Amino acid sequence: MIFNQLDILSENEIERILDTSYRILEEVGLRFEWEPALDTLEARGCMVDRQAMLVRMPRKLVEEAVAGMTPLARPQDYPKIFWAPWIGMNLIEFETKTRRPGRLDDCRNIVNLVNNLENISVSSTGVVPQDVPIEIADVFMAELLFKYSEKIFTTWTYTIETGRDLVEMALAVTGGEEEFRNSKVLNYLAEPVTPLKMPRHMLEIMTLYAQYDQPINMGSMVQVGTTGPATLAGSVALQMAENMAGLAYLYCLGSKSPVALGGPMQTSDMRTGRCLYAAPELSLIHLALVACAHHLGYMSGCTSGLCDANTMDFQCGWERGLSGVLLWAAGSESIGMRGEIGGGEGLGR
Amino acid sequence: MIFNQLDILSENEIERILDTSYRILEEVGLRFEWEPALDTLEARGCMVDRQAMLVRMPRKLVEEAVAGMTPLARPQDYPKIFWAPWIGMNLIEFETKTRRPGRLDDCRNIVNLVNNLENISVSSTGVVPQDVPIEIADVFMAELLFKYSEKIFTTWTYTIETGRDLVEMALAVTGGEEEFRNSKVLNYLAEPVTPLKMPRHMLEIMTLYAQYDQPINMGSMVQVGTTGPATLAGSVALQMAENMAGLAYLYCLGSKSPVALGGPMQTSDMRTGRCLYAAPELSLIHLALVACAHHLGYMSGCTSGLCDANTMDFQCGWERGLSGVLLWAAGSESIGMRGEIGGGEGLGR
Repeated sequence: MIFNQLDILSENEIERILDTSYRILEEVGLRFEWEPALDTLEARGCMVDRQAMLVRMPRKLVEEAVAGMTPLARPQDYPKIFWAPWIGMNLIEFETKTRRPGRLDDCRNIVNLVNNLENISVSSTGVVPQDVPIEIADVFMAELLFKYSEKIFTTWTYTIETGRDLVEMALAVTGGEEEFRNSKVLNYLAEPVTPLKMPRHMLEIMTLYAQYDQPINMGSMVQVGTTGPATLAGSVALQMAENMAGLAYLYCLGSKSPVALGGPMQTSDMRTGRCLYAAPELSLIHLALVACAHHLGYMSGCTSGLCDANTMDFQCGWERGLSGVLLWAAGSESIGMRGEIGGGEGLGR
Repeated sequence: MIFNQLDILSENEIERILDTSYRILEEVGLRFEWEPALDTLEARGCMVDRQAMLVRMPRKLVEEAVAGMTPLARPQDYPKIFWAPWIGMNLIEFETKTRRPGRLDDCRNIVNLVNNLENISVSSTGVVPQDVPIEIADVFMAELLFKYSEKIFTTWTYTIETGRDLVEMALAVTGGEEEFRNSKVLNYLAEPVTPLKMPRHMLEIMTLYAQYDQPINMGSMVQVGTTGPATLAGSVALQMAENMAGLAYLYCLGSKSPVALGGPMQTSDMRTGRCLYAAPELSLIHLALVACAHHLGYMSGCTSGLCDANTMDFQCGWERGLSGVLLWAAGSESIGMRGEIGGGEGLGR
């Protein structure tokens, strides 16, 4: 049992980062690209510039939101949640080491596989199927998971339209609105567009799922040096600001959705702009993000245990081992996703 | 900077392990296979069975030794000491991926290489040369290091005879006894033979180096499940007992040698008896060993950042990344050795 967790930031340093996040929210503001969200936020005291769709949030309101929202409960299956992969478009055939687009039968096989992997807590389809109409691939994935997964799962919701389809499925599966509300069978990874933009589809889906108390994982993806500042601390402050903006919006909605403040950040290869999933700086960032989320009383999850390697080589092992175990040592509640390679895109990216 | 280090044992658990070590020393005893050592220990109050060469050490004496000896100073080049490799007999040719015996020209090249690797603090010859008479290979290695290394180094001392050669070299290099004494230019990795045997050559060399105040790293190598108990805590207690026996012997000699309590333990593949350099259990053991050594006020070093893989594959990267960074997180002062593969023996072991 861990008695003393790894922690690279002092309380004072955490507070300086979060002070910066509060200042970004109050002084710089974010673009909320959906009129109804602007209405909601203005009604709760935010400063709204309608033409620019810019919202500045009083620190007091954000602090109320942090204190008032329900944090997603820490996992009972301590030490960790390990996630099945779900973001890649492609799959690597083990025997030929070649890359090909994901298919629906892969998804079905992966759901069955994950049912039997006792160390994976959260299931998914492993890959996005591309032998179905891509605009509604999320509906096909959700269908498979509802039908076959024996574990809780996470999956994409692409649009408000497919979101309504997923809600309809969830209502059918759980048996009714009250059951759906209690089951928390859906969840949403809400991804602001860095820097400082809350896109319409995200706000619509958050609003829909919030009506049914479904968990929402705020998961901005600041990429250090390109979409975010070049400094690690600056990017962490931006990441936290964007996540807290989502939290504050849910609070203004009066939502009972449990919330997590996630951290799928990336660093950049500055020669190419390519996002890096496993640079050493990224482990430092994730240690800081876990500390910041815990400081606010929320659980955090990061893209740890991943790699930038495109094949199962030394680099792949080194990056996974190092980044995964550091997050474990720092008390991160979730480590994932397993089974991903090459920054989520597979061989030959 | 680390503010809160990873620590898997409570104070109470550390004390229970060390209590067991003290009991092993007092109630079971160790075999000291050299008459002069028996004389020294008996004169300081140890219970000595001459026929069995068995020495039982009063807890009070060992506690005095722990408090009275000088711990090897923690490194100034924080965070870590990284070691060049020095235990392997073979080398892998990078281009052909084939294994061959080490040669003197390899050693020379490696010393030069390490001179230019800024993250390696402690140099060595990388491999044992086998194109020289093997009984005095240690003298050849020391010669190269004295001549070419720009860093502190560590190397083998095989026998009391070659030990005297190394002392003679050190006296010549440093300019005299006082200079040698202050320089700490030699050091000795003292390896008890587990379980509970202090071999003659080790005691002789320790005694020689202790006369010149040279650092001594007590580095027993308990192998869990074969030479040590099957339980991790039991093996850690045995390891600490053997290391503390060496510490107590030096104390009884009145030595001013700085001492470290090292931890190059191994676990066993129980099907074959082969020692494992990177099993998950080994990382747990090393975290415990670092905690025990620190509890006594001594620095510790472990065989971390190593692997059981015989080639530069996923396993190699995973095991190195995971075990190295865990020890770093736990505040281990040294991580090593770098550049080793296949449990120190290389491809095809």
